[in-house]
Amino acid sequence: MIKAGIIGATGYAGGELVRILLGHKDVEIKWYGSRSYIDKKYADVYRNMFTLVEDVCLDDNIEKLAKEVDVIFTATPQGFLAGVLTEEILKQCKVIDLSADYRIKDVHIYEQWYGIEHKSPQFIEEAVYGLCEINREKTKGKRLVANPGCYTTCSILTAYPLVKEGLIDTTTLIVDAKSGTSGAGRGAKVQNLYCEVNENIKAYGVASHRHTPEIEEQLGYAAGKEIQINFTPHLVPMNRGILVTEYATLNKKDGKLPTYEEIKAVYDKYYGKEKFVRVLDKGVCPETKWVEGSNYVDVNFVIDERTGRIIMMGALDNIVKGAAGQAVQNMNILFGLPEETGLELVPMFP
Amino acid sequence: MIKAGIIGATGYAGGELVRILLGHKDVEIKWYGSRSYIDKKYADVYRNMFTLVEDVCLDDNIEKLAKEVDVIFTATPQGFLAGVLTEEILKQCKVIDLSADYRIKDVHIYEQWYGIEHKSPQFIEEAVYGLCEINREKTKGKRLVANPGCYTTCSILTAYPLVKEGLIDTTTLIVDAKSGTSGAGRGAKVQNLYCEVNENIKAYGVASHRHTPEIEEQLGYAAGKEIQINFTPHLVPMNRGILVTEYATLNKKDGKLPTYEEIKAVYDKYYGKEKFVRVLDKGVCPETKWVEGSNYVDVNFVIDERTGRIIMMGALDNIVKGAAGQAVQNMNILFGLPEETGLELVPMFP
Amino acid sequence: MIKAGIIGATGYAGGELVRILLGHKDVEIKWYGSRSYIDKKYADVYRNMFTLVEDVCLDDNIEKLAKEVDVIFTATPQGFLAGVLTEEILKQCKVIDLSADYRIKDVHIYEQWYGIEHKSPQFIEEAVYGLCEINREKTKGKRLVANPGCYTTCSILTAYPLVKEGLIDTTTLIVDAKSGTSGAGRGAKVQNLYCEVNENIKAYGVASHRHTPEIEEQLGYAAGKEIQINFTPHLVPMNRGILVTEYATLNKKDGKLPTYEEIKAVYDKYYGKEKFVRVLDKGVCPETKWVEGSNYVDVNFVIDERTGRIIMMGALDNIVKGAAGQAVQNMNILFGLPEETGLELVPMFP
Amino acid sequence: MIKAGIIGATGYAGGELVRILLGHKDVEIKWYGSRSYIDKKYADVYRNMFTLVEDVCLDDNIEKLAKEVDVIFTATPQGFLAGVLTEEILKQCKVIDLSADYRIKDVHIYEQWYGIEHKSPQFIEEAVYGLCEINREKTKGKRLVANPGCYTTCSILTAYPLVKEGLIDTTTLIVDAKSGTSGAGRGAKVQNLYCEVNENIKAYGVASHRHTPEIEEQLGYAAGKEIQINFTPHLVPMNRGILVTEYATLNKKDGKLPTYEEIKAVYDKYYGKEKFVRVLDKGVCPETKWVEGSNYVDVNFVIDERTGRIIMMGALDNIVKGAAGQAVQNMNILFGLPEETGLELVPMFP
Repeated sequence: MIKAGIIGATGYAGGELVRILLGHKDVEIKWYGSRSYIDKKYADVYRNMFTLVEDVCLDDNIEKLAKEVDVIFTATPQGFLAGVLTEEILKQCKVIDLSADYRIKDVHIYEQWYGIEHKSPQFIEEAVYGLCEINREKTKGKRLVANPGCYTTCSILTAYPLVKEGLIDTTTLIVDAKSGTSGAGRGAKVQNLYCEVNENIKAYGVASHRHTPEIEEQLGYAAGKEIQINFTPHLVPMNRGILVTEYATLNKKDGKLPTYEEIKAVYDKYYGKEKFVRVLDKGVCPETKWVEGSNYVDVNFVIDERTGRIIMMGALDNIVKGAAGQAVQNMNILFGLPEETGLELVPMFP
Repeated sequence: MIKAGIIGATGYAGGELVRILLGHKDVEIKWYGSRSYIDKKYADVYRNMFTLVEDVCLDDNIEKLAKEVDVIFTATPQGFLAGVLTEEILKQCKVIDLSADYRIKDVHIYEQWYGIEHKSPQFIEEAVYGLCEINREKTKGKRLVANPGCYTTCSILTAYPLVKEGLIDTTTLIVDAKSGTSGAGRGAKVQNLYCEVNENIKAYGVASHRHTPEIEEQLGYAAGKEIQINFTPHLVPMNRGILVTEYATLNKKDGKLPTYEEIKAVYDKYYGKEKFVRVLDKGVCPETKWVEGSNYVDVNFVIDERTGRIIMMGALDNIVKGAAGQAVQNMNILFGLPEETGLELVPMFP
Repeated sequence: MIKAGIIGATGYAGGELVRILLGHKDVEIKWYGSRSYIDKKYADVYRNMFTLVEDVCLDDNIEKLAKEVDVIFTATPQGFLAGVLTEEILKQCKVIDLSADYRIKDVHIYEQWYGIEHKSPQFIEEAVYGLCEINREKTKGKRLVANPGCYTTCSILTAYPLVKEGLIDTTTLIVDAKSGTSGAGRGAKVQNLYCEVNENIKAYGVASHRHTPEIEEQLGYAAGKEIQINFTPHLVPMNRGILVTEYATLNKKDGKLPTYEEIKAVYDKYYGKEKFVRVLDKGVCPETKWVEGSNYVDVNFVIDERTGRIIMMGALDNIVKGAAGQAVQNMNILFGLPEETGLELVPMFP
Repeated sequence: MIKAGIIGATGYAGGELVRILLGHKDVEIKWYGSRSYIDKKYADVYRNMFTLVEDVCLDDNIEKLAKEVDVIFTATPQGFLAGVLTEEILKQCKVIDLSADYRIKDVHIYEQWYGIEHKSPQFIEEAVYGLCEINREKTKGKRLVANPGCYTTCSILTAYPLVKEGLIDTTTLIVDAKSGTSGAGRGAKVQNLYCEVNENIKAYGVASHRHTPEIEEQLGYAAGKEIQINFTPHLVPMNRGILVTEYATLNKKDGKLPTYEEIKAVYDKYYGKEKFVRVLDKGVCPETKWVEGSNYVDVNFVIDERTGRIIMMGALDNIVKGAAGQAVQNMNILFGLPEETGLELVPMFP
C-alpha cells in the first residue's frame, strides 16, 4: 500500500486527486494538507466526500509529511514547493508537483513568465517533465516529477506526432484553447462568480499566458529546435474540460500535401498503443463532454487543401488528465504499477 | 461472470448502465439493444465509449436475448416490456425493468395515469418494487424487478422514516421536486433544446405527473394507509440531479413537537447502516452536485417551530440512484453479490 | 428631466437600475455611487456600459447627493440607509430604498430576522411598501419608498388575490421558491463561484430566510389577520429569474371546491388591467425565461381536485420586477409619470 | 409608420426581429409568417410575447404579403427566398433577407458551399451585402438587402480596418470562432438538446463551414485581391453570443512591426464614429456578455512582438447584430431613418 500525502488538498485539483486515489486499490491517503482549512473536516469542505473521508485538514508541513508517506502530491500555488523543497525530503519520498515550479528547465524563462524568483533552482535539472505518453521512460526511477499544466498537456499531445515527424512548419503553429472554469481555481474572485462566467466567453492572457513557454519548450524538444507559438486561452461557461484547436501549415513533399491517411498513420504510430490518447475516426471532432471525468485525451485533425493548413484538435478533462489523473499516472510509473491503475474511469455522459 | 443484456441502451439511462457495468468486475455486457441505432457502433452513438465498447447496436429482440444472458435491463418507454414479456423469458433470465410497467400494483391506476392499456398484468403481482433500502429482502430470489422512478426514489427515501414511524401527518405531505434535464430523455423535442432549457426554470405536470401514484403507493405501504400527496416536478438547467423539498406537519406528542435529536434518531435508525443513503450533519442542506455521478442519496431536514412543519430534503443523481445505479444495485441483490459492487463511484465535484 | 442618484450602483441591482434608467426618457443619472470603486470609471466596472456611461464612481455621500438630485435609489446592504437617512435628506429629495431597511413595520421583527439594530426607526411608519400593483395609491406623494424584495414581490403577487378574497386557508400556505444566482449579489464568495453553482441546486435559509416576515406581513394585511408560512428558497444555476410554487388548501363553499373559472375570475379581477402582471392561459405554467429582462410577473394556478389544494405559480426577473424595475415603477408613481415609462422592456428569448 | 412582414417569424432570429420591432417607434408588424405554426397564436409559440402580440401565425405567402407591407424580412432556410422572389415583389416592397441566398456574388461558389441550386440568380447582382458599417452608402435606395451572417459580421468587422489598410498578411489570416447555441436554430435535433450542449465545447464544420466564402469575399473586396482563410466555428454552452479570435502576421514597415498606437489609430479611423462598433480600451478583451441583447460589436487586439502576429478579437450578439438587429439597421438605412432607431438596446448584464 502506497502512503500518499496531498498538499493543497482543498483546491479543485486536490479534490480530484482525492476522488481518484479513493478508487485506487494500492493507495492510502494519509495527509490532507490545506492551509486554508486546518483542523476542519475534509468532508466539510468537499461534501461529496461525506462518509468517504473522515480526516481533518492538516497544515502544509512538508518536512513532517515526508517522513510519513511514500509520495507527496503538491497541488499548490506557483512558488510554494520551490520554497520548501529540500534534498532531505526527496531522500524520504517521491514528490509529484502539480504546480509549474519545476516544469521549465531555463530558470530565467520561469522567472520572467511567472514573475517570481525561483527559490530552489538546484532541483530543476533532476525533475522530469511528467507528460507520461512522451516521457514515461525518463520518469522511472525519478524522485521529482513536474506534472504538466492542463492547457499544456492538451496542446502538446495534440500536435506532438506532427512536430516530432517534421510534418508541419512550426513557425506557423497557433494554439487556440478553450477551458472550463475549474481551471481558474477555487479562489473567491468576482471574475469567477457564476453570473460573470455564465452565458459568456472571453479570451484572456492573450500573448502572455504562462503555459506558453511550457508548450514551446516541450514541442521544441520534439522539433529539435526552438519554437515560438501563439497560445490564446479562453474561458468557457462549463465546469470541466479543455479543447484546443491548433493551426499549422503542412510541409509539402514533392510539392504535395500529405494525405489524410499519411497523417493518420503518424498519429497511430505514436498513440495507437496508448490507452489514454484516443485518435478519433475520420471526420469526428473531439468534444470535452466525451472525456469528462476520465483520463482520456481525444485528438483528431482536418486537412484543408485550400489553405494548405492542418487543423488539429484535442480534448481532455483539465482536472483529470490535465492535473490529478496525470499525477496519478505518474505515480503509477514511479512505483512500477500498471499505468492505468485507478484511472480506468469511464467518461460520464451526459 | 454475469452476462447482461440491455434493451434501450442508447437512452441516457441505458448509457449510464453501460458506464456502470463497464466498471463492474462481475458483469459482461453481451447485448446493446437499440431500435433507433440498429447495426450502428455503440461508440458512434456515445463517443465517450470510443475504444471501450466495440459492439454494434442490436434489435430489441428480447426472446432471443433471454437465451443468451443472465439478466436483461430494459430502459425502454412505458408499455414496451409489458407488451413483450413472457413466462418463457422469465424462466430463462432475470429482468430488471427501468420503465414504470410493473411498479404500480393496481393496474387501473397504472392505466389511468399512463393512458395506455397494460398488456401483461399477470406479472405485476410477482414483480418486486426495487427500492433497495426498503425492499431488499423481498427482492432476493425474484425474477422481475420494477426499478423505481427517479423522482420516486428520491421522494420516498426522503420521507420514508418519518412516514413509517408515524411522525408526520401524511395528509399534509407536499413534494416539490427539481430535476436536471437528462430526466426528459434523449428524444429530439423543441422543449428540451439547449436554448429553451438554459437560463430557465418551470414547473410541469402539475397535479398530474406519473410518478405521483408511485410515491403514494409506496408511502402508503409505509404508513399502513392510503396517502394522497401533491407532487410538483420542475425542470432545472443542469444535466443531472434531483432535489426534493418535502413539507409536512409534524404530529405532536403530548402537545409538543419532536426535537431535532428525536427526528435525527429516526433517520439514523433507518439509514445509519445504509451505504447509499447519507443523513447529513445538522444544518447542512443536500445539494445535487455532491452526489453527481454516484449512487448516493443525501437527505436532511429542518424543523420549523413556528409553523409546526418539517422540511425534508433529498438529493440524488437521477440516472444513477434514480435509474441505472439502482438497477445495478438490484442486480447485485438478485445475484447474491455485495450490494455496492460496481457502485463505489465517488461523487464528482465540481 | 428627473435627476437621479444611485447609491450602490455597482451591485447587480444597481447595474440594472443604470440599464433601465438609460432608456428612460425623463431621467438623467447624476451620481453613480459605489464605495468599492470610488474614482473608477463606471464603464470599467460594467463594461457593457462602455461608450454609454462616461461617469466615474463617486462616494456614498447621501447628504451631498440629496442636494443635487430629485430622487435617490439606494441599492445597498441592509442597515446602510437606516444609518444615514435624515429628515433633511427627505426634505430635499425622494428616496427609494432597494434594501430591507423600511419594509417591515415592526422594528422588533426586523431586528430579530436581520440581526442588526435599526438606526432610524422614526422613518419606518412613513415609508410605503412599494409593491406597486397593491400600494400604488398609498405611494403617491410619499417621500420614502421601501422597495420590496425579489422573492417577496413574486411570492405576494402570486397568492395575493386568493388571500385577499379569502379563498385559501392561509394556515396551509407554503412557498417553495427558486432563484437565479444574481440574487446572491456580486460579492466574491466561494459558494457563488461558477463551479460551485453550475450543475447544482440546493435549498438554503430553510425556515430562516429574511424574506419570510416580509411576505407574512404583507399577506397578513391582505388576509386581515396574522399569517405564518413556510418559505424555502433554492439556488438555481441561471443568472436571472425567480419562480415560486405555492401550495394552499382551498376553502370550500357549500362543501365544494371553487372551479377553475371562479379562481381565474379572481385573478382577472386583480390583474386584468395590470400591465406588468400577466395571468397566463389555462394549463400554461410560468417560466422565468419568458420574463427575462422585463418587468413582468407571470402567474397561473392549477387546482388539484384530489387533495383539495391549489398550486399557484409565479415568475419574474429578480433584478427587474424584483428590484430595479419595480424601483423605477415606484419612481414613475412618485413623479406622476405613466407607470410603464422606461419599463416597456420586451422579455428576451432565448 | 412602416408596415413590416416577417417570414420565418418563429425561428430564433424571427423572434428577435419581433422583440426589436415591438420597440421600434416607426414600425408596425403586419404579418407573422411561420409555415410550422400556421393559425397558432404567435404568443403561444413565444410566450414572452404574451399580451404583447395578439396575432396568429400566417402562411409564408410572400406574394400576398408584398402587397400589404413596406418591407419584408425573410428569416428562412437557405434557398427559400431564392425560390419565391420575383420582380413583382421587389417592385412592391423592400426585402431584407436574413438567409444566405443573395450574399455571395459568385453563384457557383454559393451552389458549391450550400449544395443547392440557386433559383433566382438574376437578383444576386442588385442585392447589396448589408454590412452596415461598410456598405451603408451602397444600401441606400436598394430594394434587396442580403443581411450578413452572424459569424461573418463578427469576423469581418474585427479584421476589416487592418485588411483594408494592408497592415496584415492576408494569407496568414485564421479565424477561430465561438458561438452560442441559438445560432444552431430552433429545429428539434438530438445534437442541440440541452444535455448534449451543456458542459461541452466542440469544433464543427472544420474547413467546410458555409460562412467561409462569405468572409473571404467581403475581406477580399477590402484587400483588393482574393483571400483564402481558415475559419473554424465552435459550439459553446450559452444561448447567445459570438466571439472571434483572429490571427494574422503583421506586415512590417522598414523591418519594424507597427505599434499599438498605430493599429489603434487605424481601428479608430474606421470605427471612431460608429455607434455600434466599440473599440475597447488597451488590454481589455471583448466578452460576449457585454454585448448581450444589444446591437454592439466589441473589438480589440493584442500585438505579439515575439511572433510578429496580431491577435484580433470581436464579440457580438449573434441574433442581434448577427441577425435581427443588423436587419433593422438596414431597414433604417433603406427608409432614411436614423440608423440607431429602435436599436438603442443597452446590453444586459448579468
